[in-house]
Amino acid sequence: MTALLPEGFHDRLPPFADAAAAVEARVLEAARLHGYERADPPLIEFAQALASRLKAGGLHDAVRFVDPVSQRTLALRPDLTAQVARIAATRMGHHPRPVRLSYAGTVVKLRASQLAPAREWRQIGAELIGLDSVAAATEIVRVAVEALSAAGATGISIDFTLPDLVDTLAAGPLPVAAEQVGPLRERLDAKDAGGVAAIAPDYLPLVEAAGPFASAIERLRRLDVHGVLASRLDGLEAIAAALGDGVAMTLDPTERHGFEYQSWLGFSLFVAGPPREVGRGGTYTLIHEDGREEKATGFSLYADAIVATAPKAERRRLFLPVGTPHADGAALRGQGWVTVQALEADDTPQAQLCTHVWTGGVPQRL
Amino acid sequence: MTALLPEGFHDRLPPFADAAAAVEARVLEAARLHGYERADPPLIEFAQALASRLKAGGLHDAVRFVDPVSQRTLALRPDLTAQVARIAATRMGHHPRPVRLSYAGTVVKLRASQLAPAREWRQIGAELIGLDSVAAATEIVRVAVEALSAAGATGISIDFTLPDLVDTLAAGPLPVAAEQVGPLRERLDAKDAGGVAAIAPDYLPLVEAAGPFASAIERLRRLDVHGVLASRLDGLEAIAAALGDGVAMTLDPTERHGFEYQSWLGFSLFVAGPPREVGRGGTYTLIHEDGREEKATGFSLYADAIVATAPKAERRRLFLPVGTPHADGAALRGQGWVTVQALEADDTPQAQLCTHVWTGGVPQRL
Repeated sequence: MTALLPEGFHDRLPPFADAAAAVEARVLEAARLHGYERADPPLIEFAQALASRLKAGGLHDAVRFVDPVSQRTLALRPDLTAQVARIAATRMGHHPRPVRLSYAGTVVKLRASQLAPAREWRQIGAELIGLDSVAAATEIVRVAVEALSAAGATGISIDFTLPDLVDTLAAGPLPVAAEQVGPLRERLDAKDAGGVAAIAPDYLPLVEAAGPFASAIERLRRLDVHGVLASRLDGLEAIAAALGDGVAMTLDPTERHGFEYQSWLGFSLFVAGPPREVGRGGTYTLIHEDGREEKATGFSLYADAIVATAPKAERRRLFLPVGTPHADGAALRGQGWVTVQALEADDTPQAQLCTHVWTGGVPQRL
Repeated sequence: MTALLPEGFHDRLPPFADAAAAVEARVLEAARLHGYERADPPLIEFAQALASRLKAGGLHDAVRFVDPVSQRTLALRPDLTAQVARIAATRMGHHPRPVRLSYAGTVVKLRASQLAPAREWRQIGAELIGLDSVAAATEIVRVAVEALSAAGATGISIDFTLPDLVDTLAAGPLPVAAEQVGPLRERLDAKDAGGVAAIAPDYLPLVEAAGPFASAIERLRRLDVHGVLASRLDGLEAIAAALGDGVAMTLDPTERHGFEYQSWLGFSLFVAGPPREVGRGGTYTLIHEDGREEKATGFSLYADAIVATAPKAERRRLFLPVGTPHADGAALRGQGWVTVQALEADDTPQAQLCTHVWTGGVPQRL
């Protein structure tokens, strides 16, 4: 019984755990080379603080408990972005903008969903605080793509979305009653033409707007006779042009799922292999202590999803028989060997998953 | 208000967080070179499972909550060793012994103590499952010392202890009533000569037994007229001889604090700088599903304590003015530069904490 883990929680074992750690290190290194420095917020915060930092953000399905010290409700973070936003807004509030921060940490949810059966996973990402411009989004998307590539992923593709598209149209050229905006977004997200027609027939073209990047942009340009989307579409095209041909791109302008707090731009990242996205990002608004709002752009990746696709590294392990002088082992490690020192006479290279054995001179392959 | 963190929880900011991550990577790399592979258990388990894996281990001051899925009590790990022991005993139970595993993860306590005011910290370590021999302990102590050294620590010293010393003497040549063994250990731990004399005067020499390694061993040899400690003292001397003169060693044979589940050997690690220990380890016994017991040896380090002492790396950041071609930045990153691309015309190298600026050709130091 004590061998079982609660549903949604998993051990990572060798060599998967090593591979996951390597993926994480490569992702963070890609961000570091672009000037992103690590922030490492605690796993636990006041629940209220976690909930109130991002505009339109909430605290869904977090594990909570009462702190015996403060008598207040604490929560385990279900997401790291809000914490990094808090750091940027408070302890690094005096730092000139933009601030570039990276992070890697465990996040936890009280309940799993059908689409995401894990209740604990590693979130790795980078946030560019202070800007949500096309230049900022271009940098963030580029860093995300380089990070995936550095992690060994292939077949990288990006699905862009425009999270505030319906709000923008509804407030402008295609008015919708305020109480109908939510239901309309929901029907569009579900690609439910009948539902959309019943609420606001003007929006019907958006049901079919998703697809390969160039043609989707073209359809949106035709819809946007009043030009309220022009800056967004220009921005998307500039980002796509900067990325070049190496990355497949699609646009699903009304996709909202998972982009609850993003503003003008959102994107999902895919790689060859896993059926689900391996990361996402976009622009958002964070809220300072004094109520002031600040723009930001960022992305998050999910290490486990990427590791599954990364090329397997060969395990090279060198067996050192009992009695091998310590200095010899040290010299071999200095040459980059992973050594496994036999501590008992009956230990064997096979038992220790060794590929090589050393008996003096040059390591011999088994 | 939302800027505050609960007592005992802390943000790690740049450049400290980067330094902590680097220390962690170096420690794990030192273990990897000795054949230790990563295990990464989840942050949360069934409380009962966490409590029952180590002999004489418990689950003190863990954060607990009721799982809405299983309706059972879950706990956040206050320690990683018991989890790694569980993995070795269950999912890796079929693997030939010894099994070498390393780990790095966040651990959480519900309450802080006066000596350890943090409620969340990173525990990094390595466990050698299947052996608690002198050879095993020598390897573990060596890996710990190499890991600290790789992390940049200097002035490394080790304080050894013999956690089951009193039990061994009390069960043999210096009998003590069963109900008095606990109080006696406590008085010895407190170095309270009067208290020890009141319970068992034979143990008085142990009050003064702590000190530099060679003289402490010598005092214990004199006390051990019946030879029940001989194998332990021989083992300690063999470990000390293997470590050589580079590491300062002391022996505090009755120190028990923090060694609640260790068996014949325990040790605390110190480095120049922090007043408190930066790690500890020793031999212990883990319990399999069928009740079978297995010996093991391991160590854990606390990254934050080490980072404070590590030499500061210089921050080298290269400012790329607005309009720098992406390919130029990529080439500079390829040469190892950390680049910070200006995204707006009024951004400056100073604002971005850059040490160098690039305007074509060779990066110029500011």
